[in-house]
Amino acid sequence: MKRKSGIIFAADLQNEEHLISIISEIADNIDAVKIGYPLVLSSGIQIVKKIKNICDIPIIADFKIMDTSVIATTIVKIALYSGCDGVMLCGVIGPTAISDCIEIAGKNMIFVFTEFTQPDGLINPKLSDDVARIAKDLGAYGIQAPGTKPDRVKRLREIVGSDLTIISCGIGAQGPPPGSAIKAGADFEIIGRAIYDSKNPKFAIKEIEKRISNVLRKNTYD
Amino acid sequence: MKRKSGIIFAADLQNEEHLISIISEIADNIDAVKIGYPLVLSSGIQIVKKIKNICDIPIIADFKIMDTSVIATTIVKIALYSGCDGVMLCGVIGPTAISDCIEIAGKNMIFVFTEFTQPDGLINPKLSDDVARIAKDLGAYGIQAPGTKPDRVKRLREIVGSDLTIISCGIGAQGPPPGSAIKAGADFEIIGRAIYDSKNPKFAIKEIEKRISNVLRKNTYD
Repeated sequence: MKRKSGIIFAADLQNEEHLISIISEIADNIDAVKIGYPLVLSSGIQIVKKIKNICDIPIIADFKIMDTSVIATTIVKIALYSGCDGVMLCGVIGPTAISDCIEIAGKNMIFVFTEFTQPDGLINPKLSDDVARIAKDLGAYGIQAPGTKPDRVKRLREIVGSDLTIISCGIGAQGPPPGSAIKAGADFEIIGRAIYDSKNPKFAIKEIEKRISNVLRKNTYD
Repeated sequence: MKRKSGIIFAADLQNEEHLISIISEIADNIDAVKIGYPLVLSSGIQIVKKIKNICDIPIIADFKIMDTSVIATTIVKIALYSGCDGVMLCGVIGPTAISDCIEIAGKNMIFVFTEFTQPDGLINPKLSDDVARIAKDLGAYGIQAPGTKPDRVKRLREIVGSDLTIISCGIGAQGPPPGSAIKAGADFEIIGRAIYDSKNPKFAIKEIEKRISNVLRKNTYD
């Protein structure tokens, strides 16, 4: 996945028309679109091809899969068949299911979710570290690390090294400013509400882009 | 949720016609239908109302939600609005998101997933015990416990007491015989492949019913 702006748009809107209108407006400023269940349950998985029709950028299915291998691989197959370029699964499902999903995905991207952005999530740093190690050992494309916890992003980067892509959620609406997760070691920041809740999404994303660009220019991890 | 047979049908089929045909055939023998993402992604969430049209039994959305409160409650709302009677979320999302989902669900059922059936799942017994305690303290309707691990079902029953409903997956195709999870302390067993992969689903479910009935007649937990 190529980085231009460092922004992955979290398409958590349920209003399809509004969503398509925003994506058309900001397509040049984003590197990928992340779609989750609120959108897919409301619009159907067909939404993937509708988004592809207006912009040719990677779509990541943030399905945070929490099932056994049989169901997990089935969900991956459906997502890829529907046009997604990557799928997110939860690392706590364990090495067998993760490995089977990576195999099924082939050249497509499997991202492994490590731990939560919310402070009372029950995946602790030790478990999250274990998940990151497994993701690296099995050759996942990347991991998701919590943008609300820069120290954890930094630690997870130490574990996975430079081979894996780190995408970070929780930027903007949940508190941390744009650029902070990339500064801590992430490759991309997943931003949703700070863009689609803005009165002027194009202006909002340009401001975000500037802040990330300032961090990228320094070209160092803290 | 009333228990007659003790069987929750795991509707993991992706062929809608086949699914509707099997549910029509076995509707009298099951207490609820559990739908998951493979089905919903293939058929759309509208499948819930199609199932309701042929049988008036509870439908549980096995969405194993792994998100922050904002997204988790949105998914619960969509599932209930679509006709589901219960939703499964993952206990590791933590007390705030669980509590918010229980509040949103009102009289509908929130089930909290504790730990995996697969042996290499990374949610260990201690974390699973913590999740069960939180589910009980927050007033969840029930928990999901791994039918492949009868000792864990027994322990989780000790933790949640008799107030919470325990549903157990992994029965049949993953190894344990019908009745074994109920014997260990569950209220319902979730069974899918052993029914829909059978050449004669009606015969298969009657055999399963008999075995569970033998356990229920003894009316004791091990």
